[in-house]
Amino acid sequence: MMKSINELIKEINELKSDLHDKDFLLTWEQTPEELERVLKTAQVLKAMRQENIATNVFKNGLAVSLFRDNSTRTRFSYASAINMLGLAQQDLDEGKSQIAHGETVRETANMISFCADAIGIRDDMYLGAGNAYMREVGEALDDGVKEGVLPHRPALVNLQCDIDHPTQSMADLAWLEEHFGGLDKLKGKKIAMTWAYSPSYGKPLSVPQGIIGLMTRFGMDVTLAHPEGYDLIPEVVEEARANAKLSGGSFTQVESMEEAFKDADIVYPKSWAPYQVMGRRTELLRANDHDGLKALEQECLAQNANHKNWHCTEEMMKLTKDGEALYMHCLPADITGVSCEEGEVEESVFEKYRIPTYKEASWKPYIIAAMIMNRKYQNPADILQELLDEGQKRVK
Amino acid sequence: MMKSINELIKEINELKSDLHDKDFLLTWEQTPEELERVLKTAQVLKAMRQENIATNVFKNGLAVSLFRDNSTRTRFSYASAINMLGLAQQDLDEGKSQIAHGETVRETANMISFCADAIGIRDDMYLGAGNAYMREVGEALDDGVKEGVLPHRPALVNLQCDIDHPTQSMADLAWLEEHFGGLDKLKGKKIAMTWAYSPSYGKPLSVPQGIIGLMTRFGMDVTLAHPEGYDLIPEVVEEARANAKLSGGSFTQVESMEEAFKDADIVYPKSWAPYQVMGRRTELLRANDHDGLKALEQECLAQNANHKNWHCTEEMMKLTKDGEALYMHCLPADITGVSCEEGEVEESVFEKYRIPTYKEASWKPYIIAAMIMNRKYQNPADILQELLDEGQKRVK
Amino acid sequence: MMKSINELIKEINELKSDLHDKDFLLTWEQTPEELERVLKTAQVLKAMRQENIATNVFKNGLAVSLFRDNSTRTRFSYASAINMLGLAQQDLDEGKSQIAHGETVRETANMISFCADAIGIRDDMYLGAGNAYMREVGEALDDGVKEGVLPHRPALVNLQCDIDHPTQSMADLAWLEEHFGGLDKLKGKKIAMTWAYSPSYGKPLSVPQGIIGLMTRFGMDVTLAHPEGYDLIPEVVEEARANAKLSGGSFTQVESMEEAFKDADIVYPKSWAPYQVMGRRTELLRANDHDGLKALEQECLAQNANHKNWHCTEEMMKLTKDGEALYMHCLPADITGVSCEEGEVEESVFEKYRIPTYKEASWKPYIIAAMIMNRKYQNPADILQELLDEGQKRVK
Repeated sequence: MMKSINELIKEINELKSDLHDKDFLLTWEQTPEELERVLKTAQVLKAMRQENIATNVFKNGLAVSLFRDNSTRTRFSYASAINMLGLAQQDLDEGKSQIAHGETVRETANMISFCADAIGIRDDMYLGAGNAYMREVGEALDDGVKEGVLPHRPALVNLQCDIDHPTQSMADLAWLEEHFGGLDKLKGKKIAMTWAYSPSYGKPLSVPQGIIGLMTRFGMDVTLAHPEGYDLIPEVVEEARANAKLSGGSFTQVESMEEAFKDADIVYPKSWAPYQVMGRRTELLRANDHDGLKALEQECLAQNANHKNWHCTEEMMKLTKDGEALYMHCLPADITGVSCEEGEVEESVFEKYRIPTYKEASWKPYIIAAMIMNRKYQNPADILQELLDEGQKRVK
Repeated sequence: MMKSINELIKEINELKSDLHDKDFLLTWEQTPEELERVLKTAQVLKAMRQENIATNVFKNGLAVSLFRDNSTRTRFSYASAINMLGLAQQDLDEGKSQIAHGETVRETANMISFCADAIGIRDDMYLGAGNAYMREVGEALDDGVKEGVLPHRPALVNLQCDIDHPTQSMADLAWLEEHFGGLDKLKGKKIAMTWAYSPSYGKPLSVPQGIIGLMTRFGMDVTLAHPEGYDLIPEVVEEARANAKLSGGSFTQVESMEEAFKDADIVYPKSWAPYQVMGRRTELLRANDHDGLKALEQECLAQNANHKNWHCTEEMMKLTKDGEALYMHCLPADITGVSCEEGEVEESVFEKYRIPTYKEASWKPYIIAAMIMNRKYQNPADILQELLDEGQKRVK
Repeated sequence: MMKSINELIKEINELKSDLHDKDFLLTWEQTPEELERVLKTAQVLKAMRQENIATNVFKNGLAVSLFRDNSTRTRFSYASAINMLGLAQQDLDEGKSQIAHGETVRETANMISFCADAIGIRDDMYLGAGNAYMREVGEALDDGVKEGVLPHRPALVNLQCDIDHPTQSMADLAWLEEHFGGLDKLKGKKIAMTWAYSPSYGKPLSVPQGIIGLMTRFGMDVTLAHPEGYDLIPEVVEEARANAKLSGGSFTQVESMEEAFKDADIVYPKSWAPYQVMGRRTELLRANDHDGLKALEQECLAQNANHKNWHCTEEMMKLTKDGEALYMHCLPADITGVSCEEGEVEESVFEKYRIPTYKEASWKPYIIAAMIMNRKYQNPADILQELLDEGQKRVK
């Protein structure tokens, strides 16, 4: 095991990266080598924890969190990530804070960052706004450093925005790498990212967009399927198409779950709201139009109900490669008869893949920590080697 | 002082314990030696803090907290305990999280635990549910470890359930041990656990149940007294009766505060709701029946008002051994003329014992930390010795 | 830079101080040497962070926070301060806790402090109550230590009260010292603390009171200006007058912003509510009189609207020394056309001084940490020297 950590560290060192100088806000803004660096850094951090080696690189420092939406998994993943690096969490609660009272983003970004080394933001409610907000924060931080207000540039972590969900998709990729035994093993594998029925509405687009945007980078055959009218943001679909061309994989759109599942090595059936609906919803949220929001919800739920056959059943799974495709989900899944009457997935299918989905999720803390390390250090490999050499126990 | 720490460590080493392999959810599930181990571990931790010796055994790691009810004392005790061990707190707020949206306990338990070393739960609202919920979480964690999802098993801490309040009763026991100069000094001492009038309603049963369940283990003469109809859970009363028989003490039930206080060495007058009422309340809470809850509250307050003579007055205290019994309370007490018009205890009695009740409370952080250490380490004595030998200052 | 840290440490050592034995609740209760000690300690801590030297003096310990009002800046400043010293934050949320249910201050102060090294309180809502509450807490803590309940006395930090805002005014002073190149350079400088129009109401008095109470200690010419009826607490104004006499500066009250700005080296235009209004508001808050509060707000907003000419414009700035006075603000400012239609300051003026106001704010974490260190250590210089000698990196 020790040897494999050493090997990974060596490999990290050989990968070119500018992650030290930019925020990791969309996976498709990073080079394949940069993505690999993050994956390998995460693997080292996970292996070190298994080996009871402490990974504290900060003696003190704050990691700010800003969640504009409910969250258990992402909240705990971020808390775990910053804790393993030695940072303390400080929540920026807009209800409690004066942000709600007209403060500018620029000012707040500086005020919270005098002693901050990381800022994690989840902002997926408003189409066209979340990712843009993160960039605005990033620019304010750059400015703060340039002007001598901030002693160092905090790492910005996109914990989910309107466009991408890079900590999720990278954790998913780390899991696929673990499961199939290497990134190179993913070439030519078919992954079906499909819509699935759920009795809820307004689920963000960032997961399916993140998956098609990232998996097309590694020579996979990515197939996207959804009912008519459940489009993703067109620019992201274009991005995926271009990625596939470059990486030697393929990107295909089909119109049924059956067609997508056919011979798939991996299936990712998950509900989302059409991007047009997300756009209307954004306008209604901004206008604080409660009646409009309720009407839209009713309309969408009715529309969803026409597509209950988008259901990941045992029958459907039989269509996949040898009937044994890997089922993935970002969790929580809407499980028929468990968390809802009719949902995304049949109970027996979910139960078969329950532990694999937990393992998939378990990568997220390490991915986030790896993103922070690659933003803070030009050569994270040197730091990891230092931690390894010191060999301090995490638990006495 | 140093010598006494050394002696305690030696004694811990000689006590047999399986606490490493089970969660400490009810005191009567632990052997006397296991209970002593926790007490002595707490004593060492408290002495080390006095001596300015750092007790950090974790370089990093999360301690999850889940409070289903308001709490200052327990919240701060848990925060103190995990902080002295080197863990960082992460609150699982069900309001903020997706638990409320149908997630299963099993899934959540794993999702929050990838980097967690302890999980503290307070769940005393629902009769028949709190302790059961903790066991369900424990099983999910065991499964997560077995399946390779979790790198290690977090310690589960019962911060109060419907049946027991082990961190409170163990802190109370540590205080009695300190006050009377040893566990053996408690043999034959009479402790009166009595109901007392309070203008509030719905106070949990876990404190009186915890006290009669634990104090009967050490050869004490435990007397329980309450007005007719204010029964505790019958199974716990049976447990206390059986314990007393085994330990060579006694367990007696009487029908007046006067009789209970007679010749008592220790008195613990405290309000609680009848368990039958707690059962009805649980049903109403589950049904979200606000009107029903209000009606029940009115009924109970009226019933309480018939028993205002259950009041710990100076007159009442005169009945105790030499008129000088030790007054105990888990705090906050309902003090007549201070926190309410008519309550559990007369102001002059409380004032006389105010500092002792504070000292009683001060044990809780150390008891919780001791529980975690005994769950995480087969031989906590070795670790304590290591901390002592290193002698790192807690404060420079 | 290293040399300058050494010099500062030497100077701290030479300053007499009783800060080890008292809480820093009002700046005018501290001697000039004590104030200088805090400033220099803050400078050392800030320089150490710049030099990547860890300033952890606690291996573990809690820092309690109690905010009775919304806050981003103060919350983050306190979090940063205690984190750089090695403490973990624990919020005392009165909504969540049992304080609301009649607990006495005395009891709560002890219950939260078994493992606490610092307690930061912001309590500026109730005139006559905030500072008094802090003293009550302080006495309870003294008593807890004396009675053997608490192993050590937590440092109490006034994060804003009804009378003073010492962490703000001391941060402002640190900024002036940095900007003008030394405390001695402030002698004879004119600072104009003036009211300014804002479309909000109920802003506390603690900032202007803190400024006139502190800046008069250093030989500055302090001019206070506000519309008729916008008085500060008379006793604080008397304090400022007496301070000025002692320090060889001056304290002047004038009736227009123009007169105050004339030849000023520094201007601090900021809105506040008349203290008579704050008194009435306190009564209404205590009585939970929502209608009364609304009526008072309307009355005050109407009164404010008569004074929109108290506006820090470019024209107004031209009156200052060479038209180049330093603009200060505790932030967030009400910026005309940005955060409100008509406010305290013209956008172009604020924009010119935006970065300086950020630098002003950046001192607060270090001032708070310095206050805690001077309360906990008789000779903080020795500890700072130890940290410097050890030279542990804050970030690997």
